Amino acid sequence: MTDHQQQNDIEALAKLLAKLPGLGPRSARRAVLHLLKKKESLMLPLATALSETAERVGPCAICGNLDSLSPCRICSDARRDKTIICVVEDVSDLWALERAGAFRGQYHVLGGTLSALEGIGPDNLNIRGLIDRVDGGGIREVILATNATVDGQTTAHYLMDKLGRFDLTVSQLAHGVPVGGELDYLDEGTLLAALKSRRPF
Amino acid sequence: MTDHQQQNDIEALAKLLAKLPGLGPRSARRAVLHLLKKKESLMLPLATALSETAERVGPCAICGNLDSLSPCRICSDARRDKTIICVVEDVSDLWALERAGAFRGQYHVLGGTLSALEGIGPDNLNIRGLIDRVDGGGIREVILATNATVDGQTTAHYLMDKLGRFDLTVSQLAHGVPVGGELDYLDEGTLLAALKSRRPF
Repeated sequence: MTDHQQQNDIEALAKLLAKLPGLGPRSARRAVLHLLKKKESLMLPLATALSETAERVGPCAICGNLDSLSPCRICSDARRDKTIICVVEDVSDLWALERAGAFRGQYHVLGGTLSALEGIGPDNLNIRGLIDRVDGGGIREVILATNATVDGQTTAHYLMDKLGRFDLTVSQLAHGVPVGGELDYLDEGTLLAALKSRRPF
Repeated sequence: MTDHQQQNDIEALAKLLAKLPGLGPRSARRAVLHLLKKKESLMLPLATALSETAERVGPCAICGNLDSLSPCRICSDARRDKTIICVVEDVSDLWALERAGAFRGQYHVLGGTLSALEGIGPDNLNIRGLIDRVDGGGIREVILATNATVDGQTTAHYLMDKLGRFDLTVSQLAHGVPVGGELDYLDEGTLLAALKSRRPF
């Protein structure tokens, strides 16, 4: 009886938890213990939240944001600017921009970047949806807010190319010194970009 | 409509996940995204595993181990030595000893340590259960495997005192250099203990 059912229950749960980013096998076991000690206040609410959120939340048909409604609440918010679309790689980037609270337009979530290495081409991303939105008219600016990585910038260049035939402004996020950042810790590329884009004081 | 229901779903889930040890607010949000991308293969199985494990698994009436049976499979395993009890603070310590595979007796889980600071006295721990088990007879050795912390050692001394009136051996884990450990990185207490308990080569 070395193949304990109890071990199976607990270990199966630990194995599932270990698949979450940020949790390894050891911290997943710690998490299981923590959960078993807080069944009513944490474990069962978490089970319910997981199944309910899985059932309710899905991608918005317009922008790809995750929401329990489609179109999502950003797309259907009348107070947001419909003429400007900010293109991001992932929903996490959309969340980051929303947390910053500095953007009041629409979004478009690509669902990744072009990657020759991983075999991700334009058809694997939500690019056709973006072109269709722009083609539908009424858009005056597209901000390409892909990450400042090689793949992110490759994707931005590809989109720039695709969007060139439309009568609109295509922009990208500024490079520079992060607010609160120390020059000593920045890479040369960032410093170069920050110098090149220097502004009058 | 700033109080989005969608934000509530996703953020409520993130808040619950952030209560797990090892996950902060940021990694909890990353985990939610990861889960939403793997609904069928991870999110729903995790929800099921959580509710099933919560329902099935509870503390063993004899030793306090977590199991879907009570008495647990260690207590009811006929091949394990019934005459020796290893006392641990927490189920995680029991798991660690079981992973090491070096102990084939019974366990007793205290559920913590005595702590004057946190107001945890003998009645808050599963100490009466241990005394009852020893009082029941048939035990020849109790190993006090509480942690080598101040609270752990205080608890061990308290238990030593309580167990003194029984006719049995009370032992504790050896202190010394961890296997694979480098002397340079060890604290003086450990080095002193390792020297004091030195053995012929």
